Amino acid sequence: SLKTWFRCSAVQFSSAQSGFFPPAEGIMLPVGAFHNRVAFITGGGTGLGRAMTATLSQLGAQCVIASRKLDVLQQTAEEISSQTGNKVHVVQCDVRDPQAVSRCVDQLESLTGLPDVIINNAAGNFVCPSERLSPNAWKSITDIVLNGTAFVTLELGKRLIQSQKGASFLAITTIYAESGSGFVAPSASAKAGVEALYKSLAAEWGRYGHRFNIIQPGPIRTKGAFSRLDPTGSFEKAMIDRIPVGRLGKPVEIANLAAYLSSDFASWMSGAIIRFDGGEYVSMAGEFNDLRRVTPEQWKVMEAMIRSTKGS
Amino acid sequence: SLKTWFRCSAVQFSSAQSGFFPPAEGIMLPVGAFHNRVAFITGGGTGLGRAMTATLSQLGAQCVIASRKLDVLQQTAEEISSQTGNKVHVVQCDVRDPQAVSRCVDQLESLTGLPDVIINNAAGNFVCPSERLSPNAWKSITDIVLNGTAFVTLELGKRLIQSQKGASFLAITTIYAESGSGFVAPSASAKAGVEALYKSLAAEWGRYGHRFNIIQPGPIRTKGAFSRLDPTGSFEKAMIDRIPVGRLGKPVEIANLAAYLSSDFASWMSGAIIRFDGGEYVSMAGEFNDLRRVTPEQWKVMEAMIRSTKGS
Amino acid sequence: SLKTWFRCSAVQFSSAQSGFFPPAEGIMLPVGAFHNRVAFITGGGTGLGRAMTATLSQLGAQCVIASRKLDVLQQTAEEISSQTGNKVHVVQCDVRDPQAVSRCVDQLESLTGLPDVIINNAAGNFVCPSERLSPNAWKSITDIVLNGTAFVTLELGKRLIQSQKGASFLAITTIYAESGSGFVAPSASAKAGVEALYKSLAAEWGRYGHRFNIIQPGPIRTKGAFSRLDPTGSFEKAMIDRIPVGRLGKPVEIANLAAYLSSDFASWMSGAIIRFDGGEYVSMAGEFNDLRRVTPEQWKVMEAMIRSTKGS
Amino acid sequence: SLKTWFRCSAVQFSSAQSGFFPPAEGIMLPVGAFHNRVAFITGGGTGLGRAMTATLSQLGAQCVIASRKLDVLQQTAEEISSQTGNKVHVVQCDVRDPQAVSRCVDQLESLTGLPDVIINNAAGNFVCPSERLSPNAWKSITDIVLNGTAFVTLELGKRLIQSQKGASFLAITTIYAESGSGFVAPSASAKAGVEALYKSLAAEWGRYGHRFNIIQPGPIRTKGAFSRLDPTGSFEKAMIDRIPVGRLGKPVEIANLAAYLSSDFASWMSGAIIRFDGGEYVSMAGEFNDLRRVTPEQWKVMEAMIRSTKGS
Ligand SMILES: NC(=O)c1ccc[n+]([C@@H]2O[C@H](COP(=O)([O-])OP(=O)(O)OC[C@H]3O[C@@H](n4cnc5c(N)ncnc54)[C@H](OP(=O)(O)O)[C@@H]3O)[C@@H](O)[C@H]2O)c1
Ligand SMILES: NC(=O)c1ccc[n+]([C@@H]2O[C@H](COP(=O)([O-])OP(=O)(O)OC[C@H]3O[C@@H](n4cnc5c(N)ncnc54)[C@H](OP(=O)(O)O)[C@@H]3O)[C@@H](O)[C@H]2O)c1
Ligand SMILES: NC(=O)c1ccc[n+]([C@@H]2O[C@H](COP(=O)([O-])OP(=O)(O)OC[C@H]3O[C@@H](n4cnc5c(N)ncnc54)[C@H](OP(=O)(O)O)[C@@H]3O)[C@@H](O)[C@H]2O)c1
Ligand SMILES: NC(=O)c1ccc[n+]([C@@H]2O[C@H](COP(=O)([O-])OP(=O)(O)OC[C@H]3O[C@@H](n4cnc5c(N)ncnc54)[C@H](OP(=O)(O)O)[C@@H]3O)[C@@H](O)[C@H]2O)c1
Repeated sequence: SLKTWFRCSAVQFSSAQSGFFPPAEGIMLPVGAFHNRVAFITGGGTGLGRAMTATLSQLGAQCVIASRKLDVLQQTAEEISSQTGNKVHVVQCDVRDPQAVSRCVDQLESLTGLPDVIINNAAGNFVCPSERLSPNAWKSITDIVLNGTAFVTLELGKRLIQSQKGASFLAITTIYAESGSGFVAPSASAKAGVEALYKSLAAEWGRYGHRFNIIQPGPIRTKGAFSRLDPTGSFEKAMIDRIPVGRLGKPVEIANLAAYLSSDFASWMSGAIIRFDGGEYVSMAGEFNDLRRVTPEQWKVMEAMIRSTKGS
Repeated sequence: SLKTWFRCSAVQFSSAQSGFFPPAEGIMLPVGAFHNRVAFITGGGTGLGRAMTATLSQLGAQCVIASRKLDVLQQTAEEISSQTGNKVHVVQCDVRDPQAVSRCVDQLESLTGLPDVIINNAAGNFVCPSERLSPNAWKSITDIVLNGTAFVTLELGKRLIQSQKGASFLAITTIYAESGSGFVAPSASAKAGVEALYKSLAAEWGRYGHRFNIIQPGPIRTKGAFSRLDPTGSFEKAMIDRIPVGRLGKPVEIANLAAYLSSDFASWMSGAIIRFDGGEYVSMAGEFNDLRRVTPEQWKVMEAMIRSTKGS
Repeated sequence: SLKTWFRCSAVQFSSAQSGFFPPAEGIMLPVGAFHNRVAFITGGGTGLGRAMTATLSQLGAQCVIASRKLDVLQQTAEEISSQTGNKVHVVQCDVRDPQAVSRCVDQLESLTGLPDVIINNAAGNFVCPSERLSPNAWKSITDIVLNGTAFVTLELGKRLIQSQKGASFLAITTIYAESGSGFVAPSASAKAGVEALYKSLAAEWGRYGHRFNIIQPGPIRTKGAFSRLDPTGSFEKAMIDRIPVGRLGKPVEIANLAAYLSSDFASWMSGAIIRFDGGEYVSMAGEFNDLRRVTPEQWKVMEAMIRSTKGS
Repeated sequence: SLKTWFRCSAVQFSSAQSGFFPPAEGIMLPVGAFHNRVAFITGGGTGLGRAMTATLSQLGAQCVIASRKLDVLQQTAEEISSQTGNKVHVVQCDVRDPQAVSRCVDQLESLTGLPDVIINNAAGNFVCPSERLSPNAWKSITDIVLNGTAFVTLELGKRLIQSQKGASFLAITTIYAESGSGFVAPSASAKAGVEALYKSLAAEWGRYGHRFNIIQPGPIRTKGAFSRLDPTGSFEKAMIDRIPVGRLGKPVEIANLAAYLSSDFASWMSGAIIRFDGGEYVSMAGEFNDLRRVTPEQWKVMEAMIRSTKGS
């Protein structure tokens, strides 16, 4: 019958289009773009934070990475330093604890001085039906993502203002900060809070020489994110199917964007929120996008039906 | 295998939840809320425009409806008048033609005087792959929706300003004005344009006593919309499945909202855009909402997998 | 000189337009619209929460109001009950404390059973340069606004789901949840988080019979808000000047909107965010809105200059 | 008195902060990033279009620029070619005319083949109170900006799809596409329409190898924009005052961003809208940002007043 027609004859998605969109693996910015700059990256030991650290280090920055697991940080720091020749420092810090953050910034100051580039990238997340969330589960995410980002940002901001030193702040949120999403409600709420914080400070702290921008990544395979968001691996295919670019993102792609936003090339950018997701968000959100399942032959039939409609 | 696991055991959607959300069929505002008010509704002869006209007329407004098909307008006007006891006037007008719009407003002025309430509801739309759109097909939609709304709004606005008379303007757009949507690109563009026009005028013309607001409806069955957007009827079930409220909207529901927005109860509302869609938009846009297909048993397995994840 | 021309001859703003937009002081919904319904309002003892409680009570609801100050709650409850003839219950509760929230819901269940209507209205806020915020000052706001709303929502949601009972959830945020704002960064962040939580749950919990909507108020004089946001009173005039409707909002106006959103007339609305601000937001945000200071004579000069421009 | 206190003692804005945000004048992308690529830029003869053309040409692209004024195009093409050593072609085209657009693309195909990079940059605009706009004035802007962009995009899209060739589409809109703005309503509407078109096609045409992104610039001095938006020059200071970065943008800054978005480094970006405005938008839109006028001494007084507030 007409009602089930499309399902049966649906266009098969091959995501073959990803061939049109090969990721560029190299580094985009000119050599030395971060020469004499200090970059502080939370969660810089793994995943996207590690990729951003590697790129900034390659471009000449002295990097400082901070998170809870000292051993992970140290191994990353050594690997990156040995590749780039630029020192990567490590500081152990749990961003949920304001005193730990303060001590971490003390250490940072004595290691490198206050940073020119700050990347708030540390986060926690897991999928869970909201009715199964305890207050502690709620706080386990919002404390890292929202309070952690605020503590780091306020502590560094105060000291930078005190020292009359400008800086670029970048935070990594997610595409569902905008729309919200079931099954990741604490993360959605906390990330939306981070975006509002950054927009607020972009307006307020420009006069102190600070810029604030945001990247909202779509899905990029990292162990940290995927093991807690798609533990069975069964969700990934559906994501790729709906991504117009036909593939997941690569850490190096986000690292190049982050380096641009943190560099002088973007010194006029502040208060911006940049979605970087292969088109996934617009593809999900648009009400008629499922019609990509309609075949050319079916379109002919539909067009004839529409044309024959009379009146309203 | 794990990868196909969810598809096979997926939760069956019954949309049984619609039982929780019965539509209220009555009229919301107090009797006489539009007594001594004149309302002008484009596209008021059919579908949602007709429902809004019926409600305003019931509430005491003198209504004037305008569109291309005089016979349709007349029949609607008679039916509504005979039910409500309040006169409904008709004016033939093709909103794409600025001179026709000017003549229509002449007629309106002589019939009822300038209106207190204006509803830009007339529109055209059809689904079509964008690569099949000719320039004329593009213009056939944008000329009605964007230019038509602008011509009506500017013509009435000028005369109202001249007469130092305040008014409430309301436009009906759509949820994909915000996100865009494939297969309805001309409509998405034109409706987004209407929203920007209204936000612009809300800021600019407040000083003349004018308010401007928008309703973005989700799917509400009308002959005009559904025959051109879902001619085969096969799309409707998928829409209902993803609407959290579990059902389509009813014309009377939008009519009650429109009456509120056009009334003095909303005299402090201007520049607002109100999504009215049973939750469809947030449900589509949120990246993890497909996890509603996961069963409670599967959640237990997933939680165990997540818990056992070590490190990032 | 031309450069200072506008400042000197600027249009004087009288906000006389507020005469066009008289607030409707009466109650909008039909008598008995909340008959047999239970409404739970946090922060219902004062300000906007009190106004919403009064309106719902007038419409037949049994209300339960909760906040920290028992005496304030009790006085409000008595005053409203004596006016409406419908019982208003009080429960002391600090929403920052999940155990207190749980006990509060226990009390609520035994007083009235689980509610049909939930309004998350409790909040804290004060103006402060962000560089003067301690971690505790940050948390003093986000703990009430974001965590408090989450604890109340999750606790009630779980029990309602357990009981297979539907409900309408409404939260009160603010217009700067969207844009962020300097000098109120913790509030902006927490309110943005609340919006994301509600959009997430609108998508996720529709299947359990729950709707989630948001009102973003612009400035409405209440003692609580104005004493902490405009202690000197010098900010108010600037706000009124830029509000297209030419006046502040009234508590009863927001109460009527809230009653609509919580009623069956809005049973198809979920995931919506409704700005209610007299047009303030669009007026501030639009880049050229300051041109309202240009007089008609100056426009003639400017038009001539523009017309004489040749080329790009 | 307290009410006028702030005005009198207001912080003097020097925009001295612009010293923190020096524009980078060099080219960001690696040499040869557009080697063997063809770029088509509408309005490429002047202003921002010219700057983007110069940068792409410098990076190795063969550029084709199109607009109405052949002499302007030719002079620009010669100047750029002679600097970069890469050929810049010119095609006369009025984008409002679909047949002219079709002929232009014919010419383009024979000159260079179909393009890899398309930049829809042509636009028209002028400030004007909306009540002074005739239907023709309305159309003079929307025909260029919305219809022109659509005609160019649809014509190129069809041929690229036919040839199975991927491409990057970029459009230049404006920050008030999002908020609307009085006094530029036709431009706001048309630019909002362009954004919706691009989001729609990002979702729909990914499968054909096409990406669609947007830059929303804030104020960047060009003869074309400033002569029609600020003919007296009196508006510029107010703009700079509210831009957190303390200065206008530079054409080369937008050219670097546009080159990035059009390059393979951004091959995973589609459906994105990037605000590039020195923070102006968030600074205008945030309700409490005017408090930057409060001096440190005044903050102390205000804090004491807030602290002494009791109750709600
Ligand atoms: N990958 C994606 O698809 C994706 C998509 C959207 C957004 N994102 C965002 O991208 C960012 C990086 O994610 P990822 O994918 O790279 O995952 P990841 O490897 O798990 O990164 C998270 C990092 O945060 C650190 N962290 C967690 N809790 C912390 C705490 N309390 N204090 C200090 N550091 C803490 C972790 O280090 P320790 O365990 O050592 O503390 C870890 O290095 C996150 O903000 C994430 O939300 C990722
Ligand atoms: N129903 C839905 O699900 C839905 C969803 C989202 C948005 N909307 C919007 O809701 C509004 C009403 O739609 P509907 O569903 O009620 O469909 P409809 O019955 O087809 O209404 C469209 C109306 O517009 C009038 N119209 C079309 N072209 C016109 C022109 N050139 N000049 C003057 N009037 C013209 C039509 O009358 P004539 O043919 O007599 O001119 C008709 O009365 C539209 O703006 C639509 O975009 C509807
Ligand atoms: N008025 C405006 O212009 C405006 C504008 C935008 C948004 N809003 C929002 O509107 C809502 C109401 O504000 P309002 O103007 O009516 O101010 P308000 O009178 O100060 O209301 C705030 C209420 O929250 C309660 N509350 C504070 N902390 C609490 C806690 N920890 N636990 C439980 N309850 C707590 C307070 O009661 P106790 O002190 O007894 O706890 C008080 O009743 C707030 O969400 C506010 O953000 C107001
Ligand atoms: N500068 C800013 O501050 C600013 C801010 C926000 C957005 N923008 C946007 O940036 C873009 C470039 O602006 P600009 O500042 O560089 O101003 P501009 O120099 O005036 O550029 C406009 C270009 O559009 C071309 N054009 C106009 N009508 C055309 C038509 N019918 N057909 C073909 N081409 C046409 C013009 O060339 P011909 O006259 O030869 O046709 C001109 O080259 C525009 O989209 C503008 O809206 C600029």
